[in-house]
Amino acid sequence: MEPANREDASPWPRHGGQARALLARFGLPPDHSFEDFSANLNPLGPPGWVPAWLERHLSELSRYPDVDYVEARAAIAAHHGVSRDQVLVTNGGGEAIFLAAGLCAGGRAGVFAPTFSEYARALAGVGAEVREIAPADPLDDLDAVFLCRPNNPDGRLLPLSEVETLLARAAAVNCRLIVDEAFIDLTTDNADANALPARLATHPQLILLRSMTKFYTLPGLRLGYALASEALIAAMARRQPPWSVNQLAAGLTAPLLADTDFAARTHAWLAVERPRMQVALERRGLEVAPGETCFFLLRPNLEARRQGLDAEALLERLLRGGILARHTHGYAGLDGGWLRLALRDKDANNRLLKVLDDCLR
Amino acid sequence: MEPANREDASPWPRHGGQARALLARFGLPPDHSFEDFSANLNPLGPPGWVPAWLERHLSELSRYPDVDYVEARAAIAAHHGVSRDQVLVTNGGGEAIFLAAGLCAGGRAGVFAPTFSEYARALAGVGAEVREIAPADPLDDLDAVFLCRPNNPDGRLLPLSEVETLLARAAAVNCRLIVDEAFIDLTTDNADANALPARLATHPQLILLRSMTKFYTLPGLRLGYALASEALIAAMARRQPPWSVNQLAAGLTAPLLADTDFAARTHAWLAVERPRMQVALERRGLEVAPGETCFFLLRPNLEARRQGLDAEALLERLLRGGILARHTHGYAGLDGGWLRLALRDKDANNRLLKVLDDCLR
Repeated sequence: MEPANREDASPWPRHGGQARALLARFGLPPDHSFEDFSANLNPLGPPGWVPAWLERHLSELSRYPDVDYVEARAAIAAHHGVSRDQVLVTNGGGEAIFLAAGLCAGGRAGVFAPTFSEYARALAGVGAEVREIAPADPLDDLDAVFLCRPNNPDGRLLPLSEVETLLARAAAVNCRLIVDEAFIDLTTDNADANALPARLATHPQLILLRSMTKFYTLPGLRLGYALASEALIAAMARRQPPWSVNQLAAGLTAPLLADTDFAARTHAWLAVERPRMQVALERRGLEVAPGETCFFLLRPNLEARRQGLDAEALLERLLRGGILARHTHGYAGLDGGWLRLALRDKDANNRLLKVLDDCLR
Repeated sequence: MEPANREDASPWPRHGGQARALLARFGLPPDHSFEDFSANLNPLGPPGWVPAWLERHLSELSRYPDVDYVEARAAIAAHHGVSRDQVLVTNGGGEAIFLAAGLCAGGRAGVFAPTFSEYARALAGVGAEVREIAPADPLDDLDAVFLCRPNNPDGRLLPLSEVETLLARAAAVNCRLIVDEAFIDLTTDNADANALPARLATHPQLILLRSMTKFYTLPGLRLGYALASEALIAAMARRQPPWSVNQLAAGLTAPLLADTDFAARTHAWLAVERPRMQVALERRGLEVAPGETCFFLLRPNLEARRQGLDAEALLERLLRGGILARHTHGYAGLDGGWLRLALRDKDANNRLLKVLDDCLR
C-alpha cells in the first residue's frame, strides 16, 4: 500500500500546525502550551464584522450554494477588472492549485525549488512529470510552470520585470505560467498586487491562483479563486466538483473584498512590522532569507551553526519556550535546514524575540 | 471556447434549485414566490442543536482544519465498523465522486442510465471514456462501474442480492464498483444502510460514496466521505487538495453521527410519508417511477399525455402555482420527459397536492 502522500512516509508532520506530532517528537506533553508561528495568517483578521455576519447567515447552510457562484464571481471580477467568465471560485487556494495542475494531466511541468510542496503533489496526482527548474532553464518541453509569488517558504517576490520575461519566454513555446499569488496581498509593498491580473487580457497562457483565507484570517472557511482566460477557466471548471465552495464562503466573498479599510490597516502594519522584525531577528544571530511577505525563512547564522545549533535544535528550543515554528522537511532544497516563522502582531512578535533571547543565549 | 460543462450549452439550468433561469424561461417575475421541491433534502433537519453548535464554533474558522481530519475520520470509521484508514472525508459527496472518478483517469467506466450526471462529468474531466451500460452487460473491458443506490433521479434501490451479483462479476474481471450511497440513509426501509460498508473487508474493488448534507439538511456546509480499502483511499487522497473539508464541517461530523434520535425520527417520517404521497400522486393522474427514497420521478400519466400535458407543461403549471420541480434535461434517457419532486414535510406535501389538483384539473 502506498502512503496517502509522500510526506506520510516521513517522520515529519505534513504542513504546518500539526503540533501534536512535534510535541511527541520532542517528548513534550500534549497539553504543552505554545503560540503558533507555523501558520501564515494575517494577525489583524478576521475583520471585526465577520463573526456577526456569519451568525446572521448560518441558516443559509440549509440551502445549496448557487452552483454557478454568480455573485461571488462578479465581486472578484470587479475587484480585478476582469470578466466574470475569467473567474473560478475554489475551495481554498488548495483546490485552485489542483485544478490548475489538472490541466497538465499526463504532461510535464516545472517548479522552482524550494517552493510550496502541493504543486508537485497535485501534478503527481494527475500523472504529470514534475521537474525542478532554475529561472534560466529552457521551457520548450514543459506544458506549464508553477511560480509562487511571493514564494512560500522564503517570501521572495520575483520582480515584475522578471515575471514578464518569464511570461514572454513561456508564451513563445506555448507553455502555461501558473502564478500562485496566495500571499500577494500580504507583501510589504502592495503596489503590484493587481499587476498580473491586468496582464490576463494579453497573456492567454497565464493562470493566477489566489487565496482569500490567509489575508482575512479565515483558513477554516476555505475560499480561493483562479483568474485566467475564459477558455482556461472553462477547462478548470470541467474538473471541479459541483458546489465546491460552501455557502458561507461564497456569501462572504463580496463583503470581504469591499472592506478596503481592513486592507489598508493590514498593509500599514506589514510595512512597519516586517522590517522591524527582520532587523531584530538578524541581531539575534539568525540568517533571514530575503523576502517581502508575512513570514520569515531563517536558520541560525554560520557562527551559531558552527557551535552546533542547527535548525532542528532551534525548532526544539523554540517549542520548549512556547513557540511553534514550521519545519522545512518536505521542501526540496531545504530539507529541514531552515525554519519558517510567521509574522504576527507586535506583542506576539515581541514574545517570540524574548524566547529567542533565551534560546540563543 | 468550450462551455464550463456540457449543460451550459443547454437552455436548461444545471442542477436543481436554479429558479432564476426557470422563472425567466416561463416569463415569471424574478420575485415570483414558490416552494422548492427541486432539492432533495431531509425536511426534518438540520437537528435542532446545530445552529447553537455552529455559533459556538465560528471562531474556529480562524484556524486551519487538521489536515488529516483524525477526529472526523474516527467518528465515521466507528459508525460503519471500518478502520480510520478506510475513510476519506470530502468536500461534499461531489468531491467524493470526482476523487473516485480520478482513479479511472484515461480509462473506461460504465454508468447505468438514467443517473446523476456528475459521474459522467467527473469521468470526462479526467479523460475517461464513459459508457452507458445495462445491468447484464459484460464488465470485462471496464475499469470501473458507477452505481447510484438509491438511484438519482428515480429513487430505485437496487436489491442487495443484485448488488452482490454485480460485485462478484466486477471482482472477477478486476473492475471497481463505485456505489454512490448519497441517499442510502433516506430510504423507506433503512435495514441495509450499513450492508455495503460491511462488505468492504472482503471486496477490495468496492468504493462507497456518502453525503452527510442531504440527511442532515446542510447542503451549504459541504460534507461527504468515501469508504474503501486502505489502498484505494490512499490513492484517492493523493488527488485531494489539502484542507478540502472546512473546519465547521469537520467538527460537526462526530456530533451529527451521534444524534441517533434525529435519525430515528427521520426514518419514522419517511416510512409513512413516502407511501402516502406515492398513492396521492398516482390518484392525481401521475405516473410515478418505482422508488424508495425521499423524492419522486414522475410524469403525467398516459391519458394526460395524450391530452397534451407533457412534463414541461406540468413543470410550468407547477411553477405558476408556486411549486419548483426539478427538470430532467441532462439525464440521459429522460431528456426532460419526467420531473423530479422532493418529498417534504407533511404540510408542504399537502400544499403540493393542492397545486396539483389545480394543475391537473
